[in-house]
Amino acid sequence: MDAIIKKIIEFRDERDWKQFHNPKDLAISLTLEASELLENFQWKESVEAVNKNKEQIQDELADVLIYALMIAHDLEIDVEHAIVHKLKKNAEKYPIEKFKGTSKKYTEG
Amino acid sequence: MDAIIKKIIEFRDERDWKQFHNPKDLAISLTLEASELLENFQWKESVEAVNKNKEQIQDELADVLIYALMIAHDLEIDVEHAIVHKLKKNAEKYPIEKFKGTSKKYTEG
Amino acid sequence: MDAIIKKIIEFRDERDWKQFHNPKDLAISLTLEASELLENFQWKESVEAVNKNKEQIQDELADVLIYALMIAHDLEIDVEHAIVHKLKKNAEKYPIEKFKGTSKKYTEG
Amino acid sequence: MDAIIKKIIEFRDERDWKQFHNPKDLAISLTLEASELLENFQWKESVEAVNKNKEQIQDELADVLIYALMIAHDLEIDVEHAIVHKLKKNAEKYPIEKFKGTSKKYTEG
Repeated sequence: MDAIIKKIIEFRDERDWKQFHNPKDLAISLTLEASELLENFQWKESVEAVNKNKEQIQDELADVLIYALMIAHDLEIDVEHAIVHKLKKNAEKYPIEKFKGTSKKYTEG
Repeated sequence: MDAIIKKIIEFRDERDWKQFHNPKDLAISLTLEASELLENFQWKESVEAVNKNKEQIQDELADVLIYALMIAHDLEIDVEHAIVHKLKKNAEKYPIEKFKGTSKKYTEG
Repeated sequence: MDAIIKKIIEFRDERDWKQFHNPKDLAISLTLEASELLENFQWKESVEAVNKNKEQIQDELADVLIYALMIAHDLEIDVEHAIVHKLKKNAEKYPIEKFKGTSKKYTEG
Repeated sequence: MDAIIKKIIEFRDERDWKQFHNPKDLAISLTLEASELLENFQWKESVEAVNKNKEQIQDELADVLIYALMIAHDLEIDVEHAIVHKLKKNAEKYPIEKFKGTSKKYTEG
């Protein structure tokens, strides 16, 4: 993980783009890339979209991850810790015995 | 990276949620989580938002990463390879000599 | 309002696109267009973005409205009634005496 | 249309919120509301979502329209003109003879 974050930051530093990358604009960019990923599924069933657009889906997913890891780096968030911590919170919100096999949200619980 | 993806998939399998997780709905969920991250910056300057909402920002960023890594897992996308591959493409689109120190898009180049 | 909705539906019917326009895919398209609008503000201060991208902003805003009015039409939602109804709800959530001059959310109230 | 925009602006002026409403933050808010609309369709087939969440869908659609009309008002965009103008552009991009009955994008044309 550290190695891949290092490559992303190198890419940015070579272009001297840190100056534009305040967290708010990075969060905007993250939503834009997530939308570009979703665009590959527009007007299509899931299976058809994956078959037709696999390469673009991979590329847009990479852009999502690049921005997400950049935000983590800039805010000094440890990615693994953050994910493990959130999975614990989600586990409390969605206890297995209550939510197994259902797509209900906890608000619908 | 593999270890963290394994934890995410375990969380899902314990709840038997794979059945709901077609890539299209996962891509929808990814944009929803990216929006929830961005919501922390609504009506605020970047610095103020980070100071006030650091914990929520970390949690929403974790949710973004959880969905992104789930999509990668389900589509058998190697995350590191995908990022390195996309950084190369971005480097061709944004050559250093032309884009150093500018926030122009390649379309504005 | 009715006249403009009629034009939008005519555009769709001429292309026989109703068959693709289930509400879920229309809601996806609406978020995609909202993102394209937001893209005009990426890496820019608000004023600079408006000065540089006024025409694109107008076009993307039109696309947002086109999809929003299409969804309203298909779900038989009266747009004026829906807006007036929601403004009343928002007024209860954000009473003037408590929220005048503050950008706090009701959750932060 | 003018009457409804007037009501929206009155709601804002009573709370003295114009000061927070630069177009960039309004565009962010528009994407957030579009996502909240989409959230009603998460993990659901379109028909099921409409049946279960009709009222919330109407409310979120109203919020989308409120922000879109606010942006139009602040940037002095005539909504009807903008929509008619964009439908013409879309008609050129998607000529009937080529796109009738197909969900292809013009880029796939």
